[in-house]
Amino acid sequence: MLSKNTIKYITSLKQKKFRDEFRQFVAEGDKLVSELLLSYLKIVEIFAVKEWFSAHNIAGNIKVTEVTAFELERISGLTTPNLVIALLEIPDNEKFETINFDNLILVLDEIKDPGNLGTIIRIADWFGIKDIICSNHTVDIYNPKVVQATMGSIARVIVHYTELTTFLKEIPKNIPVYGTLLSGENIYTQDLTKNGMIIIGNESKGISGELLPLIKTKLLIPSFPENNESRAESLNASIACAIVCAEFKRRVFSC
Amino acid sequence: MLSKNTIKYITSLKQKKFRDEFRQFVAEGDKLVSELLLSYLKIVEIFAVKEWFSAHNIAGNIKVTEVTAFELERISGLTTPNLVIALLEIPDNEKFETINFDNLILVLDEIKDPGNLGTIIRIADWFGIKDIICSNHTVDIYNPKVVQATMGSIARVIVHYTELTTFLKEIPKNIPVYGTLLSGENIYTQDLTKNGMIIIGNESKGISGELLPLIKTKLLIPSFPENNESRAESLNASIACAIVCAEFKRRVFSC
Repeated sequence: MLSKNTIKYITSLKQKKFRDEFRQFVAEGDKLVSELLLSYLKIVEIFAVKEWFSAHNIAGNIKVTEVTAFELERISGLTTPNLVIALLEIPDNEKFETINFDNLILVLDEIKDPGNLGTIIRIADWFGIKDIICSNHTVDIYNPKVVQATMGSIARVIVHYTELTTFLKEIPKNIPVYGTLLSGENIYTQDLTKNGMIIIGNESKGISGELLPLIKTKLLIPSFPENNESRAESLNASIACAIVCAEFKRRVFSC
Repeated sequence: MLSKNTIKYITSLKQKKFRDEFRQFVAEGDKLVSELLLSYLKIVEIFAVKEWFSAHNIAGNIKVTEVTAFELERISGLTTPNLVIALLEIPDNEKFETINFDNLILVLDEIKDPGNLGTIIRIADWFGIKDIICSNHTVDIYNPKVVQATMGSIARVIVHYTELTTFLKEIPKNIPVYGTLLSGENIYTQDLTKNGMIIIGNESKGISGELLPLIKTKLLIPSFPENNESRAESLNASIACAIVCAEFKRRVFSC
């Protein structure tokens, strides 16, 4: 049986100010929670229906609370609640000294759509990219819609938030900085390296003016046919990110 | 001033059964409606605030209705309504004889997420793909969330619905049929042609069992590092679609 206070607390975590205050976030659904149980993230409490607990062995340091389907619905953020909700600690990922500059690193300049951020985290995970640096105006990684869209990749990719201009000015001078721009050069004719920063811009405004001078190579994903004026104005931010990551990996591993 | 009946009619079009009955759908926002005004799609009526009409010349055959911001909110499906809503006729796109088999064609096997379908239409538009064939269980292209996610590409890509097994059995024998599968072969080592059908499977179930024997080349987008077990289980359907389309176009146009 869930108390009113518990229901209020769990639902409050949909808002960033409460997540910041209590340093906790929520993840939902059998597949996602099962992946998180195997990850470095610390699960504080699990709320699930009886059948879910019957199918899972939960370590003793995690509090477990059996709920009815109706109670689950009251604390769920999903249209169709799915067996289990976990309450997790927000880890301290502000350790910039652990960033590995020998790998590719994604830099997100004000990605606003939670689905896009979640999808980009999943793309990074697929392509072995360990770190993502977000501008302070990028949507919060612990926003429930982002958490759900990562499909578990949130447990394997480290997402940092910072002021990007300062950050990019302070990285070692020999780190290549790429950006995806409609005014860039055909990615297929550019030299790509096995490490470097790839900047992805905001969904409607693209990359901020103050970051543009810091980009060494501007990349464009060519449309086909190239001289066709009557076509989509641009690609979605996460789509552009995926094509660029795939091309870097293809080239570097010379598939 | 909007009548109760108009409000009721517009909002009813969020549901497929009413769209099917009245053969009309809704598109919202300045950017999208402006693109649709230049397209082959037939706009029946435009509801917009005064400032929008001041900035646009509307042809005489389109009914125009000035509304207040408050009225716009009542008929809008968006969280933040945006100046204008257009009511459009659903075109008759069931003409399979117009499909150009000399081009790439996307085949969607039960794509359920409206955002994914909208994004895939936008990807097709970017890469010059003119036709998409959807299974009858794929989300409806005139679902408002799909319409919005296409960002205008809905006006340039023809989306057909049919029973896929029969359709694929009836196409000319020399048309290559590709599919994206986790059990496929590395796409970078496969021969890719400038035409053919590319099957994209459902978000969680992948490609249906009955379509599998019809695929001639099974394609996998390799993860990196390839032998890494601890990574995302898969890529989102629209992400996989984008990477595959980009690779077909890159190879065929030998960038």
